[in-house]
Amino acid sequence: GLEFSCDVDAVPEGTIVFPHEPLVRVQGPIVQCQILETALLNMINFQSLIATKAARICISTMGEPVLEFGLRRAQGIDGALAASRAAYIGGSAATSNVLAGKLFGIPVRGTHAHSWVMSFDTEEESFQNYAKAMPNNCVFLVDTYDTIEGVRHAITVGRWLREQGHKMVGIRLDSGDLAYLSREARKILDDAGFQSSVIVASNDLDENIIASLKQQGAAIAVWGVGTKLVTGHDQAALGGVYKLVAIRRPGKPWEYKIKISEQAIKMTNPGILQIRRFHDRQENLGDVIYDREIGIPSDPVMVDPMDSTRRKKITPGLDATDLLIPVVRAGKLVYKTPPLAEIHQFLQDNLCMFHGGVKRFVNPHHYPVGLESKLNDLKTRLILKARGQAAD
Amino acid sequence: GLEFSCDVDAVPEGTIVFPHEPLVRVQGPIVQCQILETALLNMINFQSLIATKAARICISTMGEPVLEFGLRRAQGIDGALAASRAAYIGGSAATSNVLAGKLFGIPVRGTHAHSWVMSFDTEEESFQNYAKAMPNNCVFLVDTYDTIEGVRHAITVGRWLREQGHKMVGIRLDSGDLAYLSREARKILDDAGFQSSVIVASNDLDENIIASLKQQGAAIAVWGVGTKLVTGHDQAALGGVYKLVAIRRPGKPWEYKIKISEQAIKMTNPGILQIRRFHDRQENLGDVIYDREIGIPSDPVMVDPMDSTRRKKITPGLDATDLLIPVVRAGKLVYKTPPLAEIHQFLQDNLCMFHGGVKRFVNPHHYPVGLESKLNDLKTRLILKARGQAAD
Repeated sequence: GLEFSCDVDAVPEGTIVFPHEPLVRVQGPIVQCQILETALLNMINFQSLIATKAARICISTMGEPVLEFGLRRAQGIDGALAASRAAYIGGSAATSNVLAGKLFGIPVRGTHAHSWVMSFDTEEESFQNYAKAMPNNCVFLVDTYDTIEGVRHAITVGRWLREQGHKMVGIRLDSGDLAYLSREARKILDDAGFQSSVIVASNDLDENIIASLKQQGAAIAVWGVGTKLVTGHDQAALGGVYKLVAIRRPGKPWEYKIKISEQAIKMTNPGILQIRRFHDRQENLGDVIYDREIGIPSDPVMVDPMDSTRRKKITPGLDATDLLIPVVRAGKLVYKTPPLAEIHQFLQDNLCMFHGGVKRFVNPHHYPVGLESKLNDLKTRLILKARGQAAD
Repeated sequence: GLEFSCDVDAVPEGTIVFPHEPLVRVQGPIVQCQILETALLNMINFQSLIATKAARICISTMGEPVLEFGLRRAQGIDGALAASRAAYIGGSAATSNVLAGKLFGIPVRGTHAHSWVMSFDTEEESFQNYAKAMPNNCVFLVDTYDTIEGVRHAITVGRWLREQGHKMVGIRLDSGDLAYLSREARKILDDAGFQSSVIVASNDLDENIIASLKQQGAAIAVWGVGTKLVTGHDQAALGGVYKLVAIRRPGKPWEYKIKISEQAIKMTNPGILQIRRFHDRQENLGDVIYDREIGIPSDPVMVDPMDSTRRKKITPGLDATDLLIPVVRAGKLVYKTPPLAEIHQFLQDNLCMFHGGVKRFVNPHHYPVGLESKLNDLKTRLILKARGQAAD
């Protein structure tokens, strides 16, 4: 039999990471390490992608809630579950996936479908019946026939709800010119005394469309995002890799390994790697990737892995945190996953520690990430050796 | 209790379909029909997307085999399984996903990893050990250090395999200039007497990159495609919808329903819909979407759903096939899914029935798809009525 005996270190879920940084480090018998490769890559690549997309979308709404509506366009049933979980970690406030809500404790939100409206003779009748069935959860979908008429029908039923001691939560727009329609709808709702009923919008939204709608003064308070959140859309895959970086034969010292490539980005970083994140009390200032055996000084020099002439010295005296923490020791889980709501909050707190320039969409500032200089020297020697250009 | 009692009609898997065409028709009590919505959309949208992407990629290789290598970048574990199945239907020859092979009977193919090579002192030693373990399945990954050197090491071990009465199946390139490297590798292999060893290539391939490589005269015989196949990549989701198209209250006739939108593509087609595909012995000539109750003449006029001034009359006397077939009757499955290899072949046979112009990537010819003219008249009346622009 094959008993799992590896050590695994990883960054906690919700940690902000950058290109070149190791997210998981597995150490153990080589066969066991190789068996883990594909499963780890599948889970980490996809879920990191979706959490990242969710974080971007939540940045674009500037704090307004994002509802994840992705199940019907997600890539498979458990692809949808994983996406709902990752989206919630990334910042979404709720999901329409009832099973994800049940399994992971994510808040569940949704509205009725167009087919609900169409199954009645009139839109008003459909809203009325919905209000009778769900008096405390009325977000009326108003665009089945004519959006502005739909808002008026919602108001009629909203008045009835008030008479019964309930409240119309809001309306939802799912097509058309959302900037224009939301402003018109807001005006009609306000004039009718429904200032506290919110406007939910959906329709192939992503962070760029949301940013544009906000710039146009759209009166949208809650954002329903589906397809483009749970698939990654313009970036449908994260290209994380799992590589052999060091090997130790019985009784021998560690041998560091490198995968050479004509593409610099496909070149691996050798070593038993850890990330040290330097920060002051307000802000993270840079990440240094270092080798556990070589170690790291308190004021390291970091070297850009894509351009070794770009170097930066870390100011002495900064606080620092090592990001990879023990998860498995000798095959046994030693890490307790926090409740999902804590991870959701952890990511928000994390994001606050990065300068706004790093988080903007257009020409973002590059947060400094580099190899500790001795590790960079080692890597250079290994490359030259593999290319037969050094005696070493 | 709620007992499933719907009728379901659907196009068989592997059928080529076009925008506006109904892929599945569900008829039954409205609550049951609504419960199916999200699950059906999730499965059909994703798997149709991946089968389509696979078909495009297989068209680009002009008959050369495509291996689906997507598990590590797929969207979740069962997203990967569904993707492997759909890719095989779409035309891929094999998968690297062993579980998909086992569950669905898809041929399994793969090579060793870079980490295999790196776990030995030299590349040649790693190939030698692989050859000892898998003498009948040797496709050596030659790009860990230096691709051309890697080809020479493969040849050394290939000679050893020959001495043992085995055969080197081939080599695999996974980085660099695949057009140049494949031609060089082919030359080295041929000169060494390994004319029958094939070159497998991978590295973020899709149909456009493959078409470009073929145009450059790349000497690649087998194409490994991963990320961009199993995620859809440049189209990460298929936007299929599930809409209420007709309703019948107890003792009343059918009422046809339409979802209005300011976006013509979001407008639904009312009716109990069927697709009739007209063809001669060589080629499919056009699809007419018609309503089961209104019926269809033998020489129908079809109307473009996006532009009602574009009409086309079907030549009388053509053969025709109705695409939607019974799958479930009164809640019971009445359709027997063929073995997956038959569906794979069915799609290939199907594709042959379409003119090459429809299948090209740049400026493809639009295959004629339209609404039967009486159905189009009905739709127009319903739109005008919903917009309050007709007395009817």
